[in-house]
Amino acid sequence: MAPQTAKQWLLAKQPTDMPHLDGPSATFKLATDVALPDLKDGQVLLKTLYLSNDPAQRGWISASIPADRLYVPPVKVGTPMHARGIAEVVESRADSHKPGMVVAAGTNWTDYCVLDAKDCPPLPDIAGLGKSHFLGALGTTGLTAYYGLVEIARAKKEDTVVVSGAAGATGSMVVQIAKKMVGCKKVIGMAGSDEKCRWVEKLGADVCLNYKSPTFKEDLNKATAGYVEVYFDNVGGEILDMMLARMKTHGRVAACGSISGYNSESTPYGIKNWFEVITNRIEIRGFIVLDYLHKRQEVVGKFVAAIKEGKLSIGDENETVVPTAFEDIPKTWMKLFEGSNTGKLVTKL
Amino acid sequence: MAPQTAKQWLLAKQPTDMPHLDGPSATFKLATDVALPDLKDGQVLLKTLYLSNDPAQRGWISASIPADRLYVPPVKVGTPMHARGIAEVVESRADSHKPGMVVAAGTNWTDYCVLDAKDCPPLPDIAGLGKSHFLGALGTTGLTAYYGLVEIARAKKEDTVVVSGAAGATGSMVVQIAKKMVGCKKVIGMAGSDEKCRWVEKLGADVCLNYKSPTFKEDLNKATAGYVEVYFDNVGGEILDMMLARMKTHGRVAACGSISGYNSESTPYGIKNWFEVITNRIEIRGFIVLDYLHKRQEVVGKFVAAIKEGKLSIGDENETVVPTAFEDIPKTWMKLFEGSNTGKLVTKL
Repeated sequence: MAPQTAKQWLLAKQPTDMPHLDGPSATFKLATDVALPDLKDGQVLLKTLYLSNDPAQRGWISASIPADRLYVPPVKVGTPMHARGIAEVVESRADSHKPGMVVAAGTNWTDYCVLDAKDCPPLPDIAGLGKSHFLGALGTTGLTAYYGLVEIARAKKEDTVVVSGAAGATGSMVVQIAKKMVGCKKVIGMAGSDEKCRWVEKLGADVCLNYKSPTFKEDLNKATAGYVEVYFDNVGGEILDMMLARMKTHGRVAACGSISGYNSESTPYGIKNWFEVITNRIEIRGFIVLDYLHKRQEVVGKFVAAIKEGKLSIGDENETVVPTAFEDIPKTWMKLFEGSNTGKLVTKL
Repeated sequence: MAPQTAKQWLLAKQPTDMPHLDGPSATFKLATDVALPDLKDGQVLLKTLYLSNDPAQRGWISASIPADRLYVPPVKVGTPMHARGIAEVVESRADSHKPGMVVAAGTNWTDYCVLDAKDCPPLPDIAGLGKSHFLGALGTTGLTAYYGLVEIARAKKEDTVVVSGAAGATGSMVVQIAKKMVGCKKVIGMAGSDEKCRWVEKLGADVCLNYKSPTFKEDLNKATAGYVEVYFDNVGGEILDMMLARMKTHGRVAACGSISGYNSESTPYGIKNWFEVITNRIEIRGFIVLDYLHKRQEVVGKFVAAIKEGKLSIGDENETVVPTAFEDIPKTWMKLFEGSNTGKLVTKL
C-alpha cells in the first residue's frame, strides 16, 4: 500500500558559515509524519532512491545572498531542502508514468513526494550505466562540465587547460572532456591529496597538483610555464587569485563555483590580482547550467557516443555513493565540504 | 640652431606604493645635458609640447608586476619615463616631415628627442580642436573609451551603463559616447566630489554619484534599482566589488583600470563578491587599447562626425591642461592620483 506520510529534512536556519548538524543553530530539522497530498491528474507519487549532493546547494540556503541575486528561488526556512534525485514511481495518475518506472526529479530531501509527471523524465536506458550516473556524469554535473569547458571557455585542441576541484564531480568530468573529447594539448588538474591527484591523472590529466602541498605554488608555476589559455574554476578564492597570474594574454576563465568561500561567507577571501585581468585581457564568464538545460539531450548524446568510442569512461570510480539512512542525509551532504569524495557524491537511501 | 643636448626624467626606483617625488626613495631622477644622437635618414628631432598623463603609466613602473605580465616592456631603471606626447619637428631627415610640423609621438619625459619619423604621425587638422585633444578625446583615451564601451561591453540603446572614474579622461568620454552616440537608456557616473558629479551630469550622465559621500552605498542601490547591464570599470577595488552585486543577470563588465589599487600594491583591496560572477553569470573582460589601435582612424572618424552632429562635445572643459616647467613633470603627473583633474590631465611644457 502506498504511504500516506513522508519524512522531510527542512531548512531550520540559514547558515552564515559552516552549516551545523546539531545544536541550537542546527541548519536542518527532521520532520516526520508529514501528510502526503492526494494525487491529482497528471501527478505521480515518488519514492526517492538517490540524492544529488552539489556545492551549489550551499548557495541556495545562504544567509548573505539576497533572494533576488540567486538564480533559483532560495530555500525558505521551514520547507524541504532542495535537491535533485532519482526516484521510483510508486503511484501514478499520468499515462506516461507507470509504477516501477525510474525517473529524474526534484525530490528534495524527502523519502516520498508528489510531483507533476511532466517534471520527472524517465531515465534513458544506456547499457551498463547505473542509475546514479544520471545525477552525475550524465546529469547536470556532466552538462555543467561540458557547458563551461566547451561553450563558456571555448577550449580547443591547442589549449592548455587548468581545472581546480579536479577530483570532484564536475572537475573530473572536465578533465575527461578536455583531454579525451576536445583533445586539449595539456590538462592540469588540482586536487586536495596525492591520492586524488593520481586518480585525476588516471582520468587523463597530464598532471594533477596537490594544492595542500607546501610546494604547490612552485609546482603550479612549473606546470603552467608559458601560461595557459583556459582555467575552469570550481573553487574561487586563493587558487583563483593565483591562476589570474598564470593566464595567457586573452586567456579565458570559466567561473563555475567558489566552494572555498561557501562556508566562510562572513570572511570571504579577497581576490587581489585584479590588475592581471586588465593587463592580460583576461575574459571571465560566470555560468549556471540552468541556462544550458535545453542542450541536455544533445550533450548526453555526445557523451554516449564518446563512451562507445572509448573517449569517456563512466563507471563506479566516477562517483562516491554513500548508503545513507534518511536521518543522516545532512551528514552525507556535508562530506562535500570535507573534500573526501572523488567524483560525484551521491546519497543512496 | 638645433639643441645638442636634452633634459630627461629617468626612472630611479620602482615604487611599491605611492611614488615619491623627493628623498632617498625618489621614484624619478632628472638628467640634464644628455647628448642627443645625430639624426639618421628617416629620423626627426622633436621638441615636446604636451605630455599625456595616464594612470596606466603607474603599471609600467610597478615593482610588483613581473615584466612578462605587462602588455608593454616595463620602463627600465635609469631610462626615460615612458609617455606619449605632442611634439614639434625641429629638424628632419625624412621627406614626410618638415620642421614646424606637429606630430603625436612617444616622446617620453624629455624636452627633445630623436625618433623615427614613421612613428610620429602628423596631427590631422580638425577645425576648432586644440592639439592637446589628440592626447585625450581624439587620442588613445577616447579610443579606450569607445573600445571598452562599444566592443568589449557591447553597450546598446536598451542598456543602463555605470561608469566609475566618470570625471576622468576615459570615464568622461565613456559618459558622452554612452549617452549621446550609443543612446543608452541610462548612464550613471561615479566621481569623487559633488562638483565633479555636476560636471559629469553636464556631459550627459543621467546621474552621477559622489563615491565619497556617506550615503554612497544607498545612492548606488537607488540609482541601480533593477540592476544594470554594463559596468565600465576604471577604478577596481571596493567600487568594483559593490558593482558585482549591482549587475543584471548576464551583465557585462569592461575592466579598463584599477586606479584605486595602483598605489597600494602591497595591500590591494580584495574582491569579495565573487559568487555574484557565478550566480548572475557576469561576463568580465579586461582590455588594453593597444589591441585596438588599428581602428584608430575609423573611430576618430566617428568622433569627428559625432562632433559635427552635436553628439559629442570636445572643448577646454574636457581637459585639465597644466602649464609645467620641465622640472615639475612628475609633480603634474602625480595629480592623477590626487583626483584633482576633470577630463584629460595634460602637461603643457
